[in-house]
Amino acid sequence: MTRAELIHQIKTKHTFLCVGLDPDTEKIPKHLLTEEDPIYEFNKAIIDATAPYCVSFKPNTAFYEAYGLSGLTSLEKTIRYLNANYPDHFLIADAKRGDIGNTSAMYARAFFKRLDCDAITIAPYMGSDSVKPFLEFENKWAIVLGLTSNEGSSDFQQQKMNGKFLYEYVIQTSAGWGTPNNMMFVIGATKANMLTDIRAIIPEHFLLIPGVGAQGGSLADVCKYGLNKDIGLLVNSSRGIIYVSNGTDFAERAAAEAKKMADEMKTYLNH
Amino acid sequence: MTRAELIHQIKTKHTFLCVGLDPDTEKIPKHLLTEEDPIYEFNKAIIDATAPYCVSFKPNTAFYEAYGLSGLTSLEKTIRYLNANYPDHFLIADAKRGDIGNTSAMYARAFFKRLDCDAITIAPYMGSDSVKPFLEFENKWAIVLGLTSNEGSSDFQQQKMNGKFLYEYVIQTSAGWGTPNNMMFVIGATKANMLTDIRAIIPEHFLLIPGVGAQGGSLADVCKYGLNKDIGLLVNSSRGIIYVSNGTDFAERAAAEAKKMADEMKTYLNH
Repeated sequence: MTRAELIHQIKTKHTFLCVGLDPDTEKIPKHLLTEEDPIYEFNKAIIDATAPYCVSFKPNTAFYEAYGLSGLTSLEKTIRYLNANYPDHFLIADAKRGDIGNTSAMYARAFFKRLDCDAITIAPYMGSDSVKPFLEFENKWAIVLGLTSNEGSSDFQQQKMNGKFLYEYVIQTSAGWGTPNNMMFVIGATKANMLTDIRAIIPEHFLLIPGVGAQGGSLADVCKYGLNKDIGLLVNSSRGIIYVSNGTDFAERAAAEAKKMADEMKTYLNH
Repeated sequence: MTRAELIHQIKTKHTFLCVGLDPDTEKIPKHLLTEEDPIYEFNKAIIDATAPYCVSFKPNTAFYEAYGLSGLTSLEKTIRYLNANYPDHFLIADAKRGDIGNTSAMYARAFFKRLDCDAITIAPYMGSDSVKPFLEFENKWAIVLGLTSNEGSSDFQQQKMNGKFLYEYVIQTSAGWGTPNNMMFVIGATKANMLTDIRAIIPEHFLLIPGVGAQGGSLADVCKYGLNKDIGLLVNSSRGIIYVSNGTDFAERAAAEAKKMADEMKTYLNH
């Protein structure tokens, strides 16, 4: 998907919500467990219910790998379902991959060519040649970890490197490897006050913001400091949407929660 | 596998070689491509041929994910073959995973419980809670990226943080999250002169050294600066061993190359 198409979707639907698909068989509704592929059935229902209120879906690969080949089959089916039925939704593989060049090229092939995702999240520790192979595919995106929303982000990301916080240094350096048309950054929403400094470094890039909802970030703050002229935000919620209910009403309740977030987003877009 | 068992294997077999299983259907022998599962057949032959000369095998997940479910099936079969036939070989999933706590826990479950690997490589950018879930499994290991062997290691790892190189800071900090009995570090062999400084920080830990062979590192230098009282090294070669020949003699030739490395290792062990 191109940047122009993504912006068009956001402006048309008045939402920049991304729904995280992190299925956990201990949390999904019990009545689905008798299905042949409970994870896929769960995802399909969540996708169909929340699609009107979001512009993006983000399966997290860990939640599929944990179930072995059966989980990976569910992942592949979910991605094919999304590509077939929701081609206008921006599809992010939240995989946090990154390795030496020839290996990153194999990951890029897996997620961009075989699975036809629009984007993949990338861990930047190994530097330029671990990221660049993901930038060589037309209309595909590398979403590089900048500042994450977890406690451990203080260990390295929030330590100083060359006079800057590591996350600022990583953002500034890696932004030079691509363009705002093929790179985004993960910025944890629990650190909304740092968004001003980040926007000074990358005014144009889209930011993928996890941590709103279950992890405690504030949507108002994220919008106040993060929005740019092209919106420039994708705000993700996973657990806060998909696990609102584990009864037979799980999909409706997820839709209601997604709608609530989209309604709030709409107010910030109209400012 | 425990540290004591690993050291016993190394001392008994006089080798600390790790063979990297990075199958690429464009590089493996053409005559295997007619098999039902060429990657698995390739791996089995390489494993059987090189097992006498190594103490560890390291499948790199990217090279399986690139082939989708069929590749992931080959990976699972390869790992089950190793566990069934070579339980004394230290089995490393070279996956470079790492995410927020609940997600890292899912990856740990995938690689330690489902696949029963001994170890997994971890990207440290997200800090403590992204690494610690991998340390909660008895006799399992987290192998944290310290200094990698690729060009991009200069972008961040070799920049200064709090007066140290980032890789030194990462090694020092993350070493405190575990013990030499459940953590190792990846140290690129092309930077052997930095091993002295690294050994000053972590005298006891095992180091997983990629980059000998195809990436140009010197085994002599690695041993000179990296060996400790318990050996403390696993030296990996992937392409340098598994792709010596793509004829029908590929396994014998891989064995010969592995034996050559093991023979050289033996001379350093006898010093």
